[in-house]
Amino acid sequence: MWHDLKPIGRNADTGGYRRFAWTAADADCRTWFKAQAESRGLTYELDRNGNQWAWLGDPEAGDAVVTGSHLDSVPDGGAFDGPLGVVSSFAALDELRRRGVEFTKPLAITNFGDEEGARFGLACVGSRLAAGVLTRDAAHKLTDADGVTLPQAMERAGYDPDAIGADRERLDRIGAFIELHVEQGRALDLSGDAIGIASSIWPHGRWRFDFRGEANHAGTTRLVDRRDPMLSYAETVLAARREAQLAGAVATFGKISVEPNGVNAIPSLVRGWLDSRAADQESLDATVTGVEKAAREYAQAHGIDVSLTRESFTPIVEFDDALRDELARILGTQDSAADLKVPVLGTGAGHDAGILAQSIPTAMLFVRNPTGVSHSPAESAAEDDCLEGVRALADVLEGLACK
Amino acid sequence: MWHDLKPIGRNADTGGYRRFAWTAADADCRTWFKAQAESRGLTYELDRNGNQWAWLGDPEAGDAVVTGSHLDSVPDGGAFDGPLGVVSSFAALDELRRRGVEFTKPLAITNFGDEEGARFGLACVGSRLAAGVLTRDAAHKLTDADGVTLPQAMERAGYDPDAIGADRERLDRIGAFIELHVEQGRALDLSGDAIGIASSIWPHGRWRFDFRGEANHAGTTRLVDRRDPMLSYAETVLAARREAQLAGAVATFGKISVEPNGVNAIPSLVRGWLDSRAADQESLDATVTGVEKAAREYAQAHGIDVSLTRESFTPIVEFDDALRDELARILGTQDSAADLKVPVLGTGAGHDAGILAQSIPTAMLFVRNPTGVSHSPAESAAEDDCLEGVRALADVLEGLACK
Repeated sequence: MWHDLKPIGRNADTGGYRRFAWTAADADCRTWFKAQAESRGLTYELDRNGNQWAWLGDPEAGDAVVTGSHLDSVPDGGAFDGPLGVVSSFAALDELRRRGVEFTKPLAITNFGDEEGARFGLACVGSRLAAGVLTRDAAHKLTDADGVTLPQAMERAGYDPDAIGADRERLDRIGAFIELHVEQGRALDLSGDAIGIASSIWPHGRWRFDFRGEANHAGTTRLVDRRDPMLSYAETVLAARREAQLAGAVATFGKISVEPNGVNAIPSLVRGWLDSRAADQESLDATVTGVEKAAREYAQAHGIDVSLTRESFTPIVEFDDALRDELARILGTQDSAADLKVPVLGTGAGHDAGILAQSIPTAMLFVRNPTGVSHSPAESAAEDDCLEGVRALADVLEGLACK
Repeated sequence: MWHDLKPIGRNADTGGYRRFAWTAADADCRTWFKAQAESRGLTYELDRNGNQWAWLGDPEAGDAVVTGSHLDSVPDGGAFDGPLGVVSSFAALDELRRRGVEFTKPLAITNFGDEEGARFGLACVGSRLAAGVLTRDAAHKLTDADGVTLPQAMERAGYDPDAIGADRERLDRIGAFIELHVEQGRALDLSGDAIGIASSIWPHGRWRFDFRGEANHAGTTRLVDRRDPMLSYAETVLAARREAQLAGAVATFGKISVEPNGVNAIPSLVRGWLDSRAADQESLDATVTGVEKAAREYAQAHGIDVSLTRESFTPIVEFDDALRDELARILGTQDSAADLKVPVLGTGAGHDAGILAQSIPTAMLFVRNPTGVSHSPAESAAEDDCLEGVRALADVLEGLACK
């Protein structure tokens, strides 16, 4: 199963994946999903928002237990982020059939479309649309780097862009959603556990800092006469690291845009984007406030004009308490997982599960990632840990859908 | 005269000029030059390398006194950088005719093509070609941002790209070349002088720093697990300012390229270009060595791989001693400039005069720029100072061509 999926959208040079929404690589992944569903005698469904479903039992019966993740990737992403959850879902169903359990509730496996947002800049488009968090009109305005709009991309891939939008009826069928995902940090590696349960998704946001100085000749302008916004930017990058350390948060300047961006020109404008996340709102506020203060102090002392724009913000997502406790109980007591001490941990990454948690009871399982690396070909998970993940997911599905 | 030239290639929004080589704006400037030559009864000449000449007297006679500059601009450049030298040359000739002087040598006014290199990335193409510093084959490989090659651009503008190349015969006619230019710093403003004489063009170079770390998820990677090259870059930007201050040099990071340049991705690669210049080679070496040392120390401590590439380097250009002394004598003693104490100053900027200085006796005059700003619409010169520049240039031409 893993073998078939491996070559799709893979770059031979970097070993990284480029499976962007509505591309040929995405279509190949979708074909794979449908084939997996059909080979197991599951009822295949494609919803209005491009999310795929594979049903065991009557989709209309309600109180369904649903598991799955996504198959798309970031640019040069790893093999596990997304696909591990989908592959493990099918494998967990196979395991349950081997166990010969009797299902008392409908079960479904899903592949949510465009989770990474690598093409159109907005993450979790498939789940956002279904949950009504993203409207059809807003989605129709999304455009990729080549100027192709989301509706154009969907049409070219053979989908109807006018059908997208809130799909409450479909979500209302779900009693619990479980997403298994490779961990995107080293918490499990450090604690020595193969599997963890998510407590919450950290509050996170993006802030754009515009540092405006004065364009000038790099060769003839005395240092004292300069208003060089690159210096303000550099001070702010270092301040972000300091403030994040102090607050126990994370802060990153990963994207920059410079005008005129010439070797012999002092820039007129340096635009830097801060991504910051923390376990709680207070720590996040402390970090961003500290970075802003440092940026303004330095800028003021050096004749730089700095402005700050919050481009996006997502408050903390707390997963369903009862469902989380249920998972901890199942994984802590059942025979097949008797040796698991399952830690409960927060995560700084967004997920479809985070979107759905606002509408339905949702939980997440993490599988240990020994490098902690994410969104890179260096992301990994040991085969034993992946199998442990399948067993844990099977245990959870059995506990929820077969009791 | 100034009035006619002012609207050509001007951007209505920024007030800056975009007069790139072989564009419509460039053609308009060339038409203006030819009309100025013809209206004064001068012999107009276009050389094989696209440089324009306006001759008073016999071009073939030898030992000519030549003055001029360029009419092209950087992106959003100011009104004075280049055009002030050409306009002042025509105005100085008018002044000399008013004075009724008798010329004993041929005089020419020039407009060198593509001085700024804004389109093809290489400065002083017209003078480099004429001096044989740039070969025809190398010039034919120059390509602009839209993929248009220099030969294609020349052909579209009606010029023969196969005719370009070394033009020793034409340069051998010249006994002295004087370029008047708006100052690109504040030395004259600070010393309180309207006019200065160039001593040398500082040695300068461009170094590319490649900082390689590890791409990772900005939300989930603990600070201690990161190898974030943006932090190394930021430390190096600040080190460049410190080292330049210590050495009395200038150093600028004005251009950057980041991979993958995503808001939620710790970069794998940050590439930054250092432009550094100093009055002497020793100070320049001290600056660049200091920046490199700081970059390597920080990178090593944080798991970043740093590599350094010198992309270009130009040693110090000393203008002709005898000609410089002659200019100082003329401007210090003649009646019309009796109140001038003419300072002699170095400059961090490259010029056609710097290229020609390697072949023929060359000198430069600078006109005060009260803002010190260059390569920006904020560049300026007071009308009185410009008139002082014309008088000084007329004095120099009279002293050199009429004795």
